[in-house]
Amino acid sequence: MEHAILLLQCPDQKGIVARVSEFIFRHDGNIINSDQYTTDPEGGRFFIRIEFYFDLLKTSRKSLQENLSAISDALSGVAELHFDDRPLRMGVLVSKQDHCLYDLLYLRRSGELSVEIPLVISNHEDCRALVESHGIPFHYLAVTKDTKASQEKRMVQLLEKTTDFLVLARYMQILSENFITAYGKDVINIHHSFLPGFKGANPYRQAYDRGVKLIGATAHYVTPQLDEGPIIEQVVDRVYYKDTVEELKRKGKNLEKLALANAIQAHVERRIIRMNPKTIVFQ
Amino acid sequence: MEHAILLLQCPDQKGIVARVSEFIFRHDGNIINSDQYTTDPEGGRFFIRIEFYFDLLKTSRKSLQENLSAISDALSGVAELHFDDRPLRMGVLVSKQDHCLYDLLYLRRSGELSVEIPLVISNHEDCRALVESHGIPFHYLAVTKDTKASQEKRMVQLLEKTTDFLVLARYMQILSENFITAYGKDVINIHHSFLPGFKGANPYRQAYDRGVKLIGATAHYVTPQLDEGPIIEQVVDRVYYKDTVEELKRKGKNLEKLALANAIQAHVERRIIRMNPKTIVFQ
Amino acid sequence: MEHAILLLQCPDQKGIVARVSEFIFRHDGNIINSDQYTTDPEGGRFFIRIEFYFDLLKTSRKSLQENLSAISDALSGVAELHFDDRPLRMGVLVSKQDHCLYDLLYLRRSGELSVEIPLVISNHEDCRALVESHGIPFHYLAVTKDTKASQEKRMVQLLEKTTDFLVLARYMQILSENFITAYGKDVINIHHSFLPGFKGANPYRQAYDRGVKLIGATAHYVTPQLDEGPIIEQVVDRVYYKDTVEELKRKGKNLEKLALANAIQAHVERRIIRMNPKTIVFQ
Amino acid sequence: MEHAILLLQCPDQKGIVARVSEFIFRHDGNIINSDQYTTDPEGGRFFIRIEFYFDLLKTSRKSLQENLSAISDALSGVAELHFDDRPLRMGVLVSKQDHCLYDLLYLRRSGELSVEIPLVISNHEDCRALVESHGIPFHYLAVTKDTKASQEKRMVQLLEKTTDFLVLARYMQILSENFITAYGKDVINIHHSFLPGFKGANPYRQAYDRGVKLIGATAHYVTPQLDEGPIIEQVVDRVYYKDTVEELKRKGKNLEKLALANAIQAHVERRIIRMNPKTIVFQ
Repeated sequence: MEHAILLLQCPDQKGIVARVSEFIFRHDGNIINSDQYTTDPEGGRFFIRIEFYFDLLKTSRKSLQENLSAISDALSGVAELHFDDRPLRMGVLVSKQDHCLYDLLYLRRSGELSVEIPLVISNHEDCRALVESHGIPFHYLAVTKDTKASQEKRMVQLLEKTTDFLVLARYMQILSENFITAYGKDVINIHHSFLPGFKGANPYRQAYDRGVKLIGATAHYVTPQLDEGPIIEQVVDRVYYKDTVEELKRKGKNLEKLALANAIQAHVERRIIRMNPKTIVFQ
Repeated sequence: MEHAILLLQCPDQKGIVARVSEFIFRHDGNIINSDQYTTDPEGGRFFIRIEFYFDLLKTSRKSLQENLSAISDALSGVAELHFDDRPLRMGVLVSKQDHCLYDLLYLRRSGELSVEIPLVISNHEDCRALVESHGIPFHYLAVTKDTKASQEKRMVQLLEKTTDFLVLARYMQILSENFITAYGKDVINIHHSFLPGFKGANPYRQAYDRGVKLIGATAHYVTPQLDEGPIIEQVVDRVYYKDTVEELKRKGKNLEKLALANAIQAHVERRIIRMNPKTIVFQ
Repeated sequence: MEHAILLLQCPDQKGIVARVSEFIFRHDGNIINSDQYTTDPEGGRFFIRIEFYFDLLKTSRKSLQENLSAISDALSGVAELHFDDRPLRMGVLVSKQDHCLYDLLYLRRSGELSVEIPLVISNHEDCRALVESHGIPFHYLAVTKDTKASQEKRMVQLLEKTTDFLVLARYMQILSENFITAYGKDVINIHHSFLPGFKGANPYRQAYDRGVKLIGATAHYVTPQLDEGPIIEQVVDRVYYKDTVEELKRKGKNLEKLALANAIQAHVERRIIRMNPKTIVFQ
Repeated sequence: MEHAILLLQCPDQKGIVARVSEFIFRHDGNIINSDQYTTDPEGGRFFIRIEFYFDLLKTSRKSLQENLSAISDALSGVAELHFDDRPLRMGVLVSKQDHCLYDLLYLRRSGELSVEIPLVISNHEDCRALVESHGIPFHYLAVTKDTKASQEKRMVQLLEKTTDFLVLARYMQILSENFITAYGKDVINIHHSFLPGFKGANPYRQAYDRGVKLIGATAHYVTPQLDEGPIIEQVVDRVYYKDTVEELKRKGKNLEKLALANAIQAHVERRIIRMNPKTIVFQ
C-alpha cells in the first residue's frame, strides 16, 4: 500500500469534504487521518489535510494528481499531493553554535526525523568534525560584506538540486532577499526568543535586562522581513531570579532544539499550511 | 442556519468519510470542522467528529437522524447527532470545598461554559448561600452509612429528569454502582492528583510525602471503579522544596478548577468519544 | 511568637549575612526562611529576604526596626521590616470584565490570599452587584476626557488612607502620571499579553493576527510608561490552529487570573524586591 | 579567589544562620548565594546551602573543614563542604538506547555540564562507536542471570576509583542491592514515566493503555527499592489523541533527556540534599 498526504485550501463552500473524500474513495484509497478547518463559517477559507493509503495496482500517482488538480481548480483552490516515498532532503546552515545541529544529526541518524542531510554549510570551520563524523559533506563558506553576494550564489548552487528545504540551525548571518528568492524553497529558522518579543541581536540579554519571567524560542519560515516570517512553533521555560544571562542561554538551548525539531517534524510530515503571515499546523 | 455535531465510530473501512460527507452535502449542510482518527491503518477503529451547519427549510432533523442511523448501521458503527439548541443541563454535587463550584458558577453566568445548572446537591450546608446567590436551587442531602442508599435514590429522583450530565465538584462521598447505573448519564469527577498516581484519600499529603516535583489534577468520567474511569483532562504544576502540604493544596485548587472546566468544556462541545477505559478528546 | 520579614539590598561586601543574622539572633529571633542573591560576585548588588519569629517579651518591634536601620545605613543599603499582623488592604479598580475581580473576591474570602478589600472603584456600574454581594463598598466613578483629572483626584482621596496597595483588575483606563505619584504606593496591573509582545490595545487580536503559538498574560507594577513597568509574573498557554480570537480571550482569562493572583500573593508575602526596570521575586 | 559550597542540615534551633555566616566571615569569605529552609517552625529540621568565595592566602581548606565540623557537631548536624576545583567524574551505564547518552556527551563536551566521563559501561555493544568517538573508554559487560553477580563485581572495580557518581542513562538491567552498597556513591537513574505512576516495564505502553493526557519522565537517586528512590526532577508533555505508543516514546525521549540533564546539573552544583525518601533541590 502506498501512502499519500493531500493538502487543500480554497474559499469555503458546501460539499468540499464530500468531493475530496469521494475522489479518494473512487481511487480505492483509505483515509486514516483527516483534519479540516474553516476560518469563518460565513465567507471564510477552508483548509484540509488528508492522509490516506492507496493501491498502485488500482490507481496511479498521475491519475491521483490530475484528478486532484481538476477538483482544486473547480474550487479555486490550491492543492498539494505528497507521496514522500523517500525522506525529504534537508540542507543545514550553521555558524559556531552547534547544539541544534548536534540534535538534528541525532534525530536523523536515529530515524526519529525522516530526513536526509545531503550537506551542511557554515561560515565557520567549527562544526566540520562533528558533521563529517556523521558522514555528511561540510562546506565552509566564509562570508564578508564583500563576498556575501558571491557566497550566497555559491550556496544556491550547492543547495538547489540537492535539497528540498533548508534549515538555519543558528546561522548568524542574515540571508538576502536575493538568496531567498533564488533558492525558492522553504527555509526554516530558529530564533532564540519568544517572538514578537526581542527581535534582533542578543535576545537573551534583552530578556535579562527587561526582567521577563519566561524565555522562549521560535521556529519560523524565513521571509525577507527579518524575524517576521510565519511562526511554526514556540516553546518557553521559566526564569528564576538567580538566572544569569549565561543560565538563560543554557536553558534557551533546550528550547531552541525543541522548537526547531518540532517545527521540522511538522514540516516533513506535511502538517503545515502557510497562510502568510501565519501558519496552520495540524497535529 | 442550524448547527449540528456528528460523532461516529466504527470498524475502519474504505469510503467512510466519503459516505458521511456526501450525506451531509446531500442535506445541503456545510461542514465547518472535522476531525478524524483511525487507531491503526490495518484493522483499526475509525472515529470522526463533524461540525456542520444546515438549513431547516431544506432538511429536517428527523431526516438527518434517520439517514445517519442507516449509514451507521451499514458500517456496524455507533453514531450520535447533536443539535444542542439549548445549553446542556449540568447537575452539580459538592461537599464543603467550594473552589470548583465557585468557578463553574462564574463560567455559567458569563456564558463561557454553555450550560444550565438546574440544581446543586450537597451533603453539607456550607455552599447553600453561594449557590442560592446565583439563583440556583440547593438541596442538602446528608449522607450516613445508614442513609446512603435512600439518599442516593433521592438524588436520582432529583437529577434524572432535570439534568443531562452530572459533575462531582469535589464531592467527598463515593457514589455506589447502583447510583451510577440508576442515573445512567455521564458523570464527571475531579480527582486531586495526577492519576494513576495517588489514588484515594489525601493525595496532596501523599504527593508531599513521596517528594514528587510536580502535582496534578485529573478530570475523568466516573465508573464503578474508584479513580479508574476514562481520563478527560490532566494538568500539572511544579512543586518547590519549600512548598508545604497547605501550599500544594492551594496550587492544587487552581489545577482542579482548570482540569474540571476544560473537561466540561470538551464534554458540552461534544468533543469526547468514550472508548473505555480511555477517551478520545478532539480539539 | 511574632512573625517578621526582613528585606535588605545593598552593595555586595563581606559579612552582610553574618551581620544581619547575628542581629536577629541577638534579638532572640529564629530564622525559618532565608533567600539571598548577589547579582555579580565582583562588585555586584546584594539582596536578602529573611523570615523569622521573635518574642515580644524579649524584644520590641521598635528595637528591631532601629537596629536594622543602623545596620542598613552602615551597609549603604535599603531595608524594610514587615510584621504584617493584619492583612494588607488592597484597593481594586475594574471596568466591565469581572473575571479577575471575581477570582480575587474568592481568594480573599477563602483566606487563600491574605488581604482585605476596603473598596472597589469602577468606571462602569457592571460589577456593583458582585462587589456588594461580598459586603464590599463599590464606587462608580465614570471617566471622560474632561473628568479624568478630577475623578483621579477623587480616587486618590478614596484610596490613600484606606489601602496599602492597588490592583488594576482589568481596568481599561490609563492612569495618569499624576495619579501614580499622588497615590504613591504600589500599583499592580494585569496586561493580557506576554510582554514585551503585544503592548497596547487588543493584544489577543494582535496575537491572533501574528499567528503566535502561545499566548500569555503579564502582571507588573505600574509606572508612568504604559506596559513597561517591572514584571512580576507571566504565564502562557498553547494556541491551536482552530482557536478563534474569542477562544484566545477565553484561554487568556485563565492566564490573567493566574498571573494576577500569583503576583498579588508574592506582593503580600513580601517576596518581591523592586529593582527598576525589573523585580526579584523570591520563592 | 576560591569557590566553596557548604551544605548543612540539623535540628532547627536559634542562631544557626548567625553561627554559620559568622564562621564564613571570620575566614574572610564572601557569600554570594544562600538558600535556607526549615521544614516546620516548631521542632522542624533546618537545611542550608551557602555558596561563597574565600582567599587561600588568608585561610585554608583544612581550617574551613575543621571549623565547620565543630559547628556541625555542636548543632548535632550533618555538614558537607565542597570545593569542586575539578569537574566531578561521572560514570555512565547504558544499554541500547542512546538518546540520553548522546545528550550527556554533548553537555560534557560543550562544558554546559561540568563533569568528566572517565568511562561508559554497557551490556550491549551498540553505543561503542558513539562513546569512543568522544575519546571515552567503553566497556562491554554482558549480563546474564548467571554472570550478573560477577559482572557487577567487575563494574564496581571499574567504577569505584574512577568515578564520583554514577548515571544510569537508560540502563535496562536492575542493579542488585549488593552493587549499590559496594559502589557506595550516588547513583542517578532516569525512569521513563511520571512516578509514582507506571513503575516497572514499558511505561509508555502502560500510559497509552490507561489513556493519560500527559506523560512524564523522572530522574531519581537509586535505592534498593526499584523506582522508589528519592525523586530529583520530573517533567511532562501533553498527549494528543492521535499519539501512538511510538509517538509517546519519541516525546518521552525529550523528557528523559531533559529530566536527566537537569538532575545531573543539580547534583554537580551541589544543590541537592537527600532526606530519604525525598530530596531538597535548591534552585
